[in-house]
Amino acid sequence: MGVVLMELVIDDARKFKQCVDAVVNLVGEGVFEVSKEGLKLRTMDPSQIAMVDFTLPHSAFSKFSVAEKVNIGLNLADLSKILARSRSGEKLALSLDEKESRLMLKFSSGQSKRSFKMPLLESGAAFPREPKISFDATVRVNGGEFKEMLRDAGLLSSHVTLHARDSEFIVEAHGDSGDLLIETKADSEAVKEVKVTAKSVAVFPYDYLDNLTRACPDDGDILIELKSDAPVRVSYEVGKAKLSYFLAPRVETA
Amino acid sequence: MGVVLMELVIDDARKFKQCVDAVVNLVGEGVFEVSKEGLKLRTMDPSQIAMVDFTLPHSAFSKFSVAEKVNIGLNLADLSKILARSRSGEKLALSLDEKESRLMLKFSSGQSKRSFKMPLLESGAAFPREPKISFDATVRVNGGEFKEMLRDAGLLSSHVTLHARDSEFIVEAHGDSGDLLIETKADSEAVKEVKVTAKSVAVFPYDYLDNLTRACPDDGDILIELKSDAPVRVSYEVGKAKLSYFLAPRVETA
Amino acid sequence: MGVVLMELVIDDARKFKQCVDAVVNLVGEGVFEVSKEGLKLRTMDPSQIAMVDFTLPHSAFSKFSVAEKVNIGLNLADLSKILARSRSGEKLALSLDEKESRLMLKFSSGQSKRSFKMPLLESGAAFPREPKISFDATVRVNGGEFKEMLRDAGLLSSHVTLHARDSEFIVEAHGDSGDLLIETKADSEAVKEVKVTAKSVAVFPYDYLDNLTRACPDDGDILIELKSDAPVRVSYEVGKAKLSYFLAPRVETA
Repeated sequence: MGVVLMELVIDDARKFKQCVDAVVNLVGEGVFEVSKEGLKLRTMDPSQIAMVDFTLPHSAFSKFSVAEKVNIGLNLADLSKILARSRSGEKLALSLDEKESRLMLKFSSGQSKRSFKMPLLESGAAFPREPKISFDATVRVNGGEFKEMLRDAGLLSSHVTLHARDSEFIVEAHGDSGDLLIETKADSEAVKEVKVTAKSVAVFPYDYLDNLTRACPDDGDILIELKSDAPVRVSYEVGKAKLSYFLAPRVETA
Repeated sequence: MGVVLMELVIDDARKFKQCVDAVVNLVGEGVFEVSKEGLKLRTMDPSQIAMVDFTLPHSAFSKFSVAEKVNIGLNLADLSKILARSRSGEKLALSLDEKESRLMLKFSSGQSKRSFKMPLLESGAAFPREPKISFDATVRVNGGEFKEMLRDAGLLSSHVTLHARDSEFIVEAHGDSGDLLIETKADSEAVKEVKVTAKSVAVFPYDYLDNLTRACPDDGDILIELKSDAPVRVSYEVGKAKLSYFLAPRVETA
Repeated sequence: MGVVLMELVIDDARKFKQCVDAVVNLVGEGVFEVSKEGLKLRTMDPSQIAMVDFTLPHSAFSKFSVAEKVNIGLNLADLSKILARSRSGEKLALSLDEKESRLMLKFSSGQSKRSFKMPLLESGAAFPREPKISFDATVRVNGGEFKEMLRDAGLLSSHVTLHARDSEFIVEAHGDSGDLLIETKADSEAVKEVKVTAKSVAVFPYDYLDNLTRACPDDGDILIELKSDAPVRVSYEVGKAKLSYFLAPRVETA
């Protein structure tokens, strides 16, 4: 791992926190790849059920200087806690010191300056490959509405059925205390678009769906790509950051 | 138990939640009796210390159709959780399906439709009788003020003394960390009316008083009917629902 | 202990709560000394790491009548809970009844009257002496800003380094998940004044610093008096109450 000097400046430290939180909901550690294009992170959650792919283009930074590609392995939970200390209107500068093998986070606003240093982790894990799936259905749904649907489902079961057919998106859950059925036609306020080449249905763990949609703004769109009994792909944007998740379906054992 | 078709529609699902919460604070399961007059529920709490009597007249519904008297046994805690998922402005339709022996709850607002199904419970327990007590004192007190008095008392003891005499209502509590005395004259903002035929005083468990008054709106009135060392009757309204509770006093063992 | 009649009236009961909370964060029991000058309390925390010195002058009361010096030993945690029950606009009258050996707290506002009685504790402990330290540095810092600095530090370590030199105030923390350095020049918004006769640095337990600054208003000033490896003195005002704390430094064992 060649660590070299870099300096990244973000004008609003809190926006960077939102991006990191979208990842930390799923994984506790991760390796950011910093290159001329921007910041990237792709990693599996510890149980290998979900993959997160995060990119923040260099245009999201007011200063973005990196000599060559750098890998920065970090404890994301610690990073999130430090970013949570950012105050309104604070600027954040990220830099590396080769000798110390530490990430430097400098918060500044006017005369006030605070700097945190975080130890870098070994970046042993290889960048995982994105699974190649030819999806049969694409659903574009409002972020806030989809989160509400999931919470309805989470009330009854630890698993949620996602179902796309014709021009309809269906969320189902079944448990001891009751059953839920939410059928929403396309071109509504909640479900903006449903494109289907083949009826697609699969069952996913509620906790994961809840975690991986949590960072999506309520007024943003979520893209859900489905294929029966295959992983779902869930994508959305947080400011300039692009987030995309793959989540494995529940496999029924006969 | 003869289960027949019925359909009840409430224009504001959240109001129905408030009614159910007034019962669920005390009992986890209950049997609603649906008849032409409306909805009724009367049940003892599991420890047999308190009885709740709930009625919601048919006029509280925008549609109220029931062929014959129906008993609907439900897990009220589950019902409350499902009702908590209702969103602002949503309509709620309740119906029964004879084959499935399930209660159907359809929330709707505009294009959005969600339906929950809940299993019905066996309604083994008989409708308990109301105790016949000739009370000696009647106190009409502001809901918010009475809840504050109870919280003052709950700070010091697990038991609260309620006391009505002449034109005065008194709340007392005694504990290791201190004593409390609240004397309030009638015709004040807090205590609107005190009618006494005989001085009445009794001691009640704080937790129960707290639970059974919780659903009362702060700006509503609570009617407290007392007789020395006899159960108290506490009644109030939540919208169109009428709630009345009997609570047994603490019996001093000599 | 000679208990005599006294009567103290505070026009805003909630202000008295704020004062008591500044003490209760550190100690669970204490003895108030009531004399013609006002109310005083000086006590060590149970682990003997911190000392609190509290004075509230008689001018903070709308009525202050005391025949001779009185010691009132109280469970401060219970006192704080009772004061938390004060409502907006309520007056508080404190009095003593010799026979009962109890403190009477009467809350009143308009027609509403509530009275709590608290048992008095034995006031065995002697009034501790203030340590005599000739400090080498004095820092005047904004209350809200200092609390934020402490929280930054508390994220990383259970100990915080306070450091004053030239015209600069420095807060440091070091832990497994990272390091923190906050350097603030004097005459800034956060650090209003730094007076140094000798560079002073010492390390203090985070929890204590957090507790003893908690009652300081965000827009108030905190005075920090330092000497290397000696106790720090932290002082501020809450309304008319004066609070001053001594806190022992961490002693490094070689």
